[in-house]
Amino acid sequence: MRMRKLPWAEDFLKEQEVVIKEPSTYAGKWKQLLNKEVLHVEIGTGKGDYWILMSQKQPENGWIGIEKNNNVAALAVRKYTKLEEAMSNVAFINDDAENISDWFEKGEVDVIHLNFSDPWPKKRAHKKRLSNEKFIRQYADILNDDGEIQMKTDNSSLFEYSVIEFQKCGWFLHDFSVDFRRNEHDEDAISEYERKFMEKGQPIYRAVWKKYPIKNEN
Amino acid sequence: MRMRKLPWAEDFLKEQEVVIKEPSTYAGKWKQLLNKEVLHVEIGTGKGDYWILMSQKQPENGWIGIEKNNNVAALAVRKYTKLEEAMSNVAFINDDAENISDWFEKGEVDVIHLNFSDPWPKKRAHKKRLSNEKFIRQYADILNDDGEIQMKTDNSSLFEYSVIEFQKCGWFLHDFSVDFRRNEHDEDAISEYERKFMEKGQPIYRAVWKKYPIKNEN
Repeated sequence: MRMRKLPWAEDFLKEQEVVIKEPSTYAGKWKQLLNKEVLHVEIGTGKGDYWILMSQKQPENGWIGIEKNNNVAALAVRKYTKLEEAMSNVAFINDDAENISDWFEKGEVDVIHLNFSDPWPKKRAHKKRLSNEKFIRQYADILNDDGEIQMKTDNSSLFEYSVIEFQKCGWFLHDFSVDFRRNEHDEDAISEYERKFMEKGQPIYRAVWKKYPIKNEN
Repeated sequence: MRMRKLPWAEDFLKEQEVVIKEPSTYAGKWKQLLNKEVLHVEIGTGKGDYWILMSQKQPENGWIGIEKNNNVAALAVRKYTKLEEAMSNVAFINDDAENISDWFEKGEVDVIHLNFSDPWPKKRAHKKRLSNEKFIRQYADILNDDGEIQMKTDNSSLFEYSVIEFQKCGWFLHDFSVDFRRNEHDEDAISEYERKFMEKGQPIYRAVWKKYPIKNEN
């Protein structure tokens, strides 16, 4: 997402308690910090709708938002600070997720969310995609054995790339939809960004991966 | 596809040389029969557009069409008999593919095509889907080690089911599109049935599975 520079962004982010300045110092301690037993991490929060809405839907879980772009991160955090009801189950990291395995202990995270990630359409930029092998290897580290990655996107190329990339890395698709909004999903939040695609009648793609295969019920 | 009964269908099918009466007697001999080195099999030809068009696009390969419904099979075979140019690379089986592993030797088939298969939408009928585990086990038998399954469909539920089902059976997705007609595919034939969905602007889903994983090029 291209954003114009917000002159107040950097100072604002420094002042906010919800923004964690040295995330690696919390490695192994995030659940303690948030006083929650289950840890969700969204990488690439954008303007923060999904991070905030999901943390409200699931106040029993911890929700960490990550966004490297200062300007977008500032909008997300400002949205959070304007909530009528303060929340104790959230934290925010304004840094580049390429170092994510420094910020969490092995197996510390329960669910990673990739919600409408930047599609990086040009072939030479595919390595920047959050579902690139380089990232997937780090997710494998920080997720616990039963942990999962949840992806939603409007972008068919990114979706196709991701399904193949996770498979190449040996992960297993546990849930998969090429038209997620065909059914109601009260458990899932719809960001303003997602709603625009839904209003245009465009399909929303979704996948859930785990490190281990689906157990056969038969 | 529901079809009204065609009174001439059964007799017509008996008379046509292209229709193989005892397919199991050709097990291990199909390539010899068609005098081709590569064998494609389409299960569920419907009215035969894809089977005929693909066998014309690839006259260097053998193409076997399978359709259990007499009435639809008769339409497919009649379409074939009306072609201006006779073709020597095709055969047709008017029988139920639930016995497909009796008709081919282990490893005899190179490519299996599931083109707009019946979606069997009701949960209790899922076992009739051509991508059900019961069928996949037979495909594994008759396909050679580098052989593949190619599926196209307009039906999102069938597609999602199939991707998960093949994965549960230990197969690997080698190619995958949630909007196959986003790009030109001159190598692939478009049946009248598929064209109707394309004209409505509906996405065509496609997947290619093999028994072994994609080799990493890096």
